[in-house]
Amino acid sequence: MTEMPARAADVVTARPATAVDAADAAAAPPRPLDPPPRLLMGPGPVNAHPRVLRASSVPLIGQYDPAMTAYMAETSALYRTVFGTANRETLLVNGTSRAGIEAALVSLVAPGERVLVPVFGRFGHLLVEIAKRAGAQVHTIEAEWGTVFDPAAIAEAVRRVRPRLLAMVHGDTSTTMLQPLDGLGAVCAEYDALLYADVTASLGGNVFAADAWGIDAATAGLQKCLGGPSGTAPVTFSPRAVEVIGGRRQIEEGLREAGDVENELRIGSNYFDMAMLFDYWGDRRLNHHTEATSALYGARECAALLVEEGMEAAVRRHELHGSALAAGVRGLGLEVFGDQRHRMNNVVAALIPDGVSDAAVRGGMLDEFGIEIGTSFGPLRGRVWRIGAMGYNARKDAVLTTLAALEQVLRGAGAKVPVGGGVEAAREAYQGAAA
Amino acid sequence: MTEMPARAADVVTARPATAVDAADAAAAPPRPLDPPPRLLMGPGPVNAHPRVLRASSVPLIGQYDPAMTAYMAETSALYRTVFGTANRETLLVNGTSRAGIEAALVSLVAPGERVLVPVFGRFGHLLVEIAKRAGAQVHTIEAEWGTVFDPAAIAEAVRRVRPRLLAMVHGDTSTTMLQPLDGLGAVCAEYDALLYADVTASLGGNVFAADAWGIDAATAGLQKCLGGPSGTAPVTFSPRAVEVIGGRRQIEEGLREAGDVENELRIGSNYFDMAMLFDYWGDRRLNHHTEATSALYGARECAALLVEEGMEAAVRRHELHGSALAAGVRGLGLEVFGDQRHRMNNVVAALIPDGVSDAAVRGGMLDEFGIEIGTSFGPLRGRVWRIGAMGYNARKDAVLTTLAALEQVLRGAGAKVPVGGGVEAAREAYQGAAA
Repeated sequence: MTEMPARAADVVTARPATAVDAADAAAAPPRPLDPPPRLLMGPGPVNAHPRVLRASSVPLIGQYDPAMTAYMAETSALYRTVFGTANRETLLVNGTSRAGIEAALVSLVAPGERVLVPVFGRFGHLLVEIAKRAGAQVHTIEAEWGTVFDPAAIAEAVRRVRPRLLAMVHGDTSTTMLQPLDGLGAVCAEYDALLYADVTASLGGNVFAADAWGIDAATAGLQKCLGGPSGTAPVTFSPRAVEVIGGRRQIEEGLREAGDVENELRIGSNYFDMAMLFDYWGDRRLNHHTEATSALYGARECAALLVEEGMEAAVRRHELHGSALAAGVRGLGLEVFGDQRHRMNNVVAALIPDGVSDAAVRGGMLDEFGIEIGTSFGPLRGRVWRIGAMGYNARKDAVLTTLAALEQVLRGAGAKVPVGGGVEAAREAYQGAAA
Repeated sequence: MTEMPARAADVVTARPATAVDAADAAAAPPRPLDPPPRLLMGPGPVNAHPRVLRASSVPLIGQYDPAMTAYMAETSALYRTVFGTANRETLLVNGTSRAGIEAALVSLVAPGERVLVPVFGRFGHLLVEIAKRAGAQVHTIEAEWGTVFDPAAIAEAVRRVRPRLLAMVHGDTSTTMLQPLDGLGAVCAEYDALLYADVTASLGGNVFAADAWGIDAATAGLQKCLGGPSGTAPVTFSPRAVEVIGGRRQIEEGLREAGDVENELRIGSNYFDMAMLFDYWGDRRLNHHTEATSALYGARECAALLVEEGMEAAVRRHELHGSALAAGVRGLGLEVFGDQRHRMNNVVAALIPDGVSDAAVRGGMLDEFGIEIGTSFGPLRGRVWRIGAMGYNARKDAVLTTLAALEQVLRGAGAKVPVGGGVEAAREAYQGAAA
């Protein structure tokens, strides 16, 4: 572990290839892109579906081309299905999943307003961080890592804090836990709070029903169960959320005309101003950023794949391969971390056995087999491996290959491993599911 | 013009294909992506280079894979050459060019600090807008559209306002003007101001020398002279800028450990916190966003293409094709807008003749020839066409094809056009340059 950077929890090999080294080396043109083949079985990013990669290389069109407007409209419609919503304002933010979170929070919450964040892992802390940057008064409640909240405890906190916004992580990959959200919408409606859900890690692989659950805003990313590259954040906002954001709407300097007044309640970011993004995606197509067309093509393809498969079937697929993976991990003699009744379908945390080197195992998986698995953050850093089967990688061959390789690497690292135990247990799980 | 949305200046055809229509239609999987072939000869976005498109579809690797760290280092090194800098902190922001602008301004300027923006077009107003959102006290000076500032006027304003930051647009596509920046670095250094340049529209097609000109921060996008898709913002920060940003640095909630204090001067955005991005791109590889790998592959290829060609050769190429385009536009009997001594190499604004319909001409170009040209914003909306030759499209065939089509469409729209006048004038310009 000593060679590893202080906190880059997912680094397997720390070699001194830094920006400055390369600059010193030369400004010569680099070799053509030829990344090593990798099977990405960590907590995400995962391998993108080949159809999504191909979509990313389709020739560009102009941002106000009628064909572009039609693709944007199709993309909105597809993500309505993916989010389980009829929300008109269902669109993309051009940035990673974290950009989607910031766009939602900075647009929904004015400085000084109260935000309640129930924290059950690293990504709850991220919501706290981003809400604070937006100037919110942030209140938290915490659950032990590896558990989720009883919804009654969240309801009680809402009553006590009376937040403008309840901000929830749905699935937190740092602990693999999936927080039940059903019922919180009614609580929020009663106390006039908005309900936001970060579904980056869960969407597409676990049941999510924005409208049925009374979710006012949800944001995601492509690099987990959606099977695409990081860099685009699908987002959706309820009519109630749109109304709140509308109160802070203003026309941009340089586009403002006689009669448009400057709004003193304006949102603290231009790029993440959802009111402007609604105007850009809406009928007026009001100029804002230049839509990232290649990214939109990819995001559209991710959603098309899910809609073709059917959302229920996609969730069942993640459940099947996640269960087989968990069975296989146990079959290798490893203990699974966290309350398994509330585990996300798409990722399993395995406790690292005493005396086995985290770095040696992850390094062996990557160097010998081209397979990436992860460790975690904070209290779980170096204590668990996070192994995922999601998006394009929620497949039997990916699960069995990972288990077979892990058996070899664990044995090489000095662990006692049942011969063939991981693959055998996974096979049984698949057979049981098929029966 | 009546059919056009109020302010979507670049819309050619306003048809009611909106998000809500599509939602009402169905959630059925859409047809495979098959955008119409387009030659994008407006002010950008332009067609991406085929090598960049292919790079965008290369398989993914993990964000802390040693190969990824090496690609990030190569990308930094390449963009040092593109920006003309030795700045260690030369990296990518995962968002469009506007994201790069916001990241620079929100990281460099604390609320209440003074920012001076000389405005000579629409994108100066955008800097005002974004700086205001960051809480800055914004002061402006204005130049008539179609002109640039005498550097002495900017120096005088710096003396008067004493800003923390002088924020300049280098090339403003709304007017096609290129503001001379050489000399402003010395002025800023004298009055302890930082100098920021938005080089989105100029970089790669016009001389830019960050270090020689004393630029403290510059941000760009891929969709103009760099020949890539929108969605990634290359940025560079001088050691002086890094020091200022370092004073506002803090470790993120959830990664913070004993001994790390919360910084009360923290930057008002998490996603755009350049101090965190420096930590993510630097030796520590501290966790922040999940790098948009496909976008990084594309951005790296854009820079590789320029470095292979040589920056001087790339600027000369833009100058050649821009000059031929301007000659051709005049050869069609159109007047060129703006002070031509200060025109950007990569875009020409042609005054729309009296009695000729802007919408009919742009619609005809798109519908009949698949060629996109643009109009402009504000006082130039419907008054000029903006025609660009940049990035992959800074090519003779693209210029001549555009002029040949424009002749036909102009004649159809009732303009008196010299037969073959555009192509002939461009041919002469090419021959003159070759002689």
